[in-house]
Amino acid sequence: MTKVFLPQGYRFAGVHCGLKSEPNLLDLSLVVSDFPATVAGVYTRNLVCGAAVQVDRSRTPGTGFKAMVANSKVANDCTGEQGYRDALEMTKLAAHYAGAEPDKALVMSTGVIGVTLPMDKVRAGIADAAGQLASDEESFMRAARGIMTTDTVEKTASRQITFQDGTVISLAGFCKGAAMIAPNMRTMLAMIMTDAALAPETAQQLLNEAVEESFNCISVDGHTSPSDTVLLFANGAASSEPQSKDCEKCADALREICIELAIKIPSDGEGVSHLIAIDVQGCRTREDAKKIARQVAEDVLVKTAIYGADPNWGRIVSAMGSAGVQFDLMKVSLQLNGFDLFQNGEPLPFDKSMVADSIRKNRDTHFLLTLQEGDAAIRFWTTDLTTEYVRLNSDYTT
Amino acid sequence: MTKVFLPQGYRFAGVHCGLKSEPNLLDLSLVVSDFPATVAGVYTRNLVCGAAVQVDRSRTPGTGFKAMVANSKVANDCTGEQGYRDALEMTKLAAHYAGAEPDKALVMSTGVIGVTLPMDKVRAGIADAAGQLASDEESFMRAARGIMTTDTVEKTASRQITFQDGTVISLAGFCKGAAMIAPNMRTMLAMIMTDAALAPETAQQLLNEAVEESFNCISVDGHTSPSDTVLLFANGAASSEPQSKDCEKCADALREICIELAIKIPSDGEGVSHLIAIDVQGCRTREDAKKIARQVAEDVLVKTAIYGADPNWGRIVSAMGSAGVQFDLMKVSLQLNGFDLFQNGEPLPFDKSMVADSIRKNRDTHFLLTLQEGDAAIRFWTTDLTTEYVRLNSDYTT
Repeated sequence: MTKVFLPQGYRFAGVHCGLKSEPNLLDLSLVVSDFPATVAGVYTRNLVCGAAVQVDRSRTPGTGFKAMVANSKVANDCTGEQGYRDALEMTKLAAHYAGAEPDKALVMSTGVIGVTLPMDKVRAGIADAAGQLASDEESFMRAARGIMTTDTVEKTASRQITFQDGTVISLAGFCKGAAMIAPNMRTMLAMIMTDAALAPETAQQLLNEAVEESFNCISVDGHTSPSDTVLLFANGAASSEPQSKDCEKCADALREICIELAIKIPSDGEGVSHLIAIDVQGCRTREDAKKIARQVAEDVLVKTAIYGADPNWGRIVSAMGSAGVQFDLMKVSLQLNGFDLFQNGEPLPFDKSMVADSIRKNRDTHFLLTLQEGDAAIRFWTTDLTTEYVRLNSDYTT
Repeated sequence: MTKVFLPQGYRFAGVHCGLKSEPNLLDLSLVVSDFPATVAGVYTRNLVCGAAVQVDRSRTPGTGFKAMVANSKVANDCTGEQGYRDALEMTKLAAHYAGAEPDKALVMSTGVIGVTLPMDKVRAGIADAAGQLASDEESFMRAARGIMTTDTVEKTASRQITFQDGTVISLAGFCKGAAMIAPNMRTMLAMIMTDAALAPETAQQLLNEAVEESFNCISVDGHTSPSDTVLLFANGAASSEPQSKDCEKCADALREICIELAIKIPSDGEGVSHLIAIDVQGCRTREDAKKIARQVAEDVLVKTAIYGADPNWGRIVSAMGSAGVQFDLMKVSLQLNGFDLFQNGEPLPFDKSMVADSIRKNRDTHFLLTLQEGDAAIRFWTTDLTTEYVRLNSDYTT
């Protein structure tokens, strides 16, 4: 296991409270900050959003937070007034055990839509977790496991950076994303903690920027879950507020962690056989580049072609054309795994079996789409679409 | 076979010219109008569009047309200058055999992207077809078969209507769409002919309206092909220009034909096990209703759930929420195959196995999504997503 750089002043727990039927699987996580933390949040853009998202959104960005409680198995989405009351109660209990004001905690839920939480189990689980809080790596990993649904591994990332005055600060985060499988549990949740101090506006801005280049640049099936949440805690246990250069270092480390976590989501789909990185460059704006990348990333014909190790570049070019972005096709070029397939609007001759082999033999696939409209670029990640994905998703509940 | 109401003044042919390797499969179609016809066209919105689309788009709406030539197997997309010259030559040859000015013919191509047409075969094919032109039903069917790619049946529809003065006019059309399978050949092509007379602006308006409610309301995989084309020929062999009531009758018949043809496209996917009709009602605008319907129609999680006969309404509601339309979730209700699953924002108890059975036992599936934002409604059609679809699409060229 890679060494985790745990930030100071946080304690973690992950317990089994009975939401999942398998007794060895953790289903509730609690994180407590011993110092009041600034918290920023980025949430789903789906109009249909879960009770936890509604509660958190109303509280962030803000200061003085000391706890985050999360559960898996039940998303508490589309559960009406009762669901909202349950989410509020979860934060109140978490705040209580952290010794904070009742509204100084946050909550995340992931799992099935349209089912209310068995609150007796949740209450007992939060109490149990509070009794197990510890600041060691094992507890951090247990907290990361408590939010897993069909993830096959816990997903964590951390960085340590040194400020100009020699202060060492740490950032660590975990996330879950079931990716290609079990979509009603496919919510993406992430939490990143640091012992740096950050003002709420700064924390929110750094998080927005990092999420834009990471969690907002992955697509598995184009479906935005009602529960998607990314939280950043900054408790100042190791430093006062960083200035200029140090703040940039924080931003870089946060972006790196977010990208590392984000990529782990599509990588972990059981049905997935390829992780596809899509570079789009030479666009007028980043927004244009993103539209093109996303259109290609979510095209089922592109995704099935990669599953079949088929260097079917026509599908990629055709998807680009329907992205709603104006560009000159005669100045478009396309590389796949380093092979030139299409240049300045014309097909190039290429050794089909050699390119097919490069797809078949590598889990990582790379598209490079070059336009000549400007200087904006983006990197986007997606997966292939496999028969196993369809089987898993159609077998989910029946 | 249903009786086809063939309009007067048209002759048809479908031949094998060698584009397809199987000698018994037709790959080139020619339709000649013995009277100069008004033609309207609706084309792909993909920025990447084929040579045939470029040629036709520059000519329609217009009058004096006497021929349409179409080929399958090679889409003549992304083929640069050569492709454009080849498309022009096809129209010139078709016009020649129809006895029209060189630019008074149109062309449609469907098949693989990025490959130029073997013009020697195409030239011979057009000559061959010209020699076989006839106005009987068998020839009409052969023309319908000449544009098929992986379609398993020819797709035709026709109507006969009587004007107020007793004049009987006919409309007949054919289309192809490979739907879920073999996506580089998935282009949607359609041609509708009538012996009514229509002014170009009228023809274009009627076609726009009919396409908006038919071909623009089907989605198989959300990918707009570079070659999508719908052409309407009106040669006036049976009538002069219809006024008011008669024009409305024409519009109705045209819309019915377009819907009948459009539904045949998703119905014919080899990998398809369900045809899903999605009714969205109670929206502020038709555009809102369409956004919601399309978001649901293209959601792979919804499509895989139906394949698995899983009444997983959470996926449908969640997809609605990410359509980019504002609505009050607490006023949303959802019926699936007539069963109430979600009402005014709250889950309803229902017999899961009974609903699952109704999905499993019927190829036709129906969603009714009711909002309370206004009076606008739409009907949209899509298919489920099956393991067979993925297998077919990943096996396509390798």
